[in-house]
Amino acid sequence: MTEYPSALLEKAVNEFSRLPGVGRKTALRFCLHLLKLPTTESDELGRTIINLRNGIQRCEICCNLSDSSRCSICTDNSRDKSIVCIVESVRDVLAIENTTQFRGVYHVLGGVISPMEGIGPTDLSLPQLELRAAKNLISEFILALPATLEGDTTSYYIFKKLSSISPASFSTIARGVAIGDELEYTDEVTLGRSILNRTPYQSR
Amino acid sequence: MTEYPSALLEKAVNEFSRLPGVGRKTALRFCLHLLKLPTTESDELGRTIINLRNGIQRCEICCNLSDSSRCSICTDNSRDKSIVCIVESVRDVLAIENTTQFRGVYHVLGGVISPMEGIGPTDLSLPQLELRAAKNLISEFILALPATLEGDTTSYYIFKKLSSISPASFSTIARGVAIGDELEYTDEVTLGRSILNRTPYQSR
Repeated sequence: MTEYPSALLEKAVNEFSRLPGVGRKTALRFCLHLLKLPTTESDELGRTIINLRNGIQRCEICCNLSDSSRCSICTDNSRDKSIVCIVESVRDVLAIENTTQFRGVYHVLGGVISPMEGIGPTDLSLPQLELRAAKNLISEFILALPATLEGDTTSYYIFKKLSSISPASFSTIARGVAIGDELEYTDEVTLGRSILNRTPYQSR
Repeated sequence: MTEYPSALLEKAVNEFSRLPGVGRKTALRFCLHLLKLPTTESDELGRTIINLRNGIQRCEICCNLSDSSRCSICTDNSRDKSIVCIVESVRDVLAIENTTQFRGVYHVLGGVISPMEGIGPTDLSLPQLELRAAKNLISEFILALPATLEGDTTSYYIFKKLSSISPASFSTIARGVAIGDELEYTDEVTLGRSILNRTPYQSR
């Protein structure tokens, strides 16, 4: 079935609709938008995509995305290299960086352990993490993994692995009622944990 | 501000977020998805975009998108070349083709006259349309333009232009209550028109 008047258009719609959350209508909209732009501008998108995949690297220390062998966070002298925040993905690094509340460094696992999806410890950047821990220069590991079964399993696995080779302390990010949330609409598990893990009251 | 750990990633997010309806979060999602794919697959998207813009043409007859100088509809011998459906965009051609109710040919204007947006008759494919009309091979023009002020203006302009050079008849697509719509939720203008333009009852 040739739904589109042009094979080139059909091919482009097919390729775009492989992106997450993009259906064929949105893909067509992208294509028609590109066809309205000057050739140089639409070519720029094409070339950027090719450059992205071929030029980008993983930081050899923290496995974050980087333009060179070490990322901008690991090479930043103002950051505290003794505190390592362990996260699932690059997206989490960006989210924490946006808070401007963290001046340590990161370790990007590239996923969490999930037997259901066939992701085991060897699929993550755990060897690099063990290497960092073994150097004994780290005082604290912050486990900032998702509050799911997979995230908890991964946190426990990492704790077991690293606590045997490093004297560092371990912490996890605080779980509780989000700021601005109504108590009555908060799920029981979160609300229960927020009472168990209550913190001393500080008047502003 | 360098929000992203990599300049290549930043550039790619910037380029993707210029697509219609794509914000920076979605653009980042696209980039991280591409980085997970094999290089060949992500390069394919880049190359397809470049090929699309450089390879696609406008059909010299109807101005539809095409891989060659004449589109697949204009070169299809089973289509009735004497009925020309005038539409705003390629998207409208696809929508009408999907109904499989039309066996004539099209003319893609590439927009509608809109003084507000600075689009005048010379920005549309009206010269090509006049050329087609002047050949006297067309028996009917169907005006299938949007039911907006701009669409109506364009329909009137085309009618005035073509009726002086062609003996063809003119029609517009039926406006009325959509199939499945409740009368009480239909806007007054549409409902009013649907009563004025009522059609003889046909029992199935």
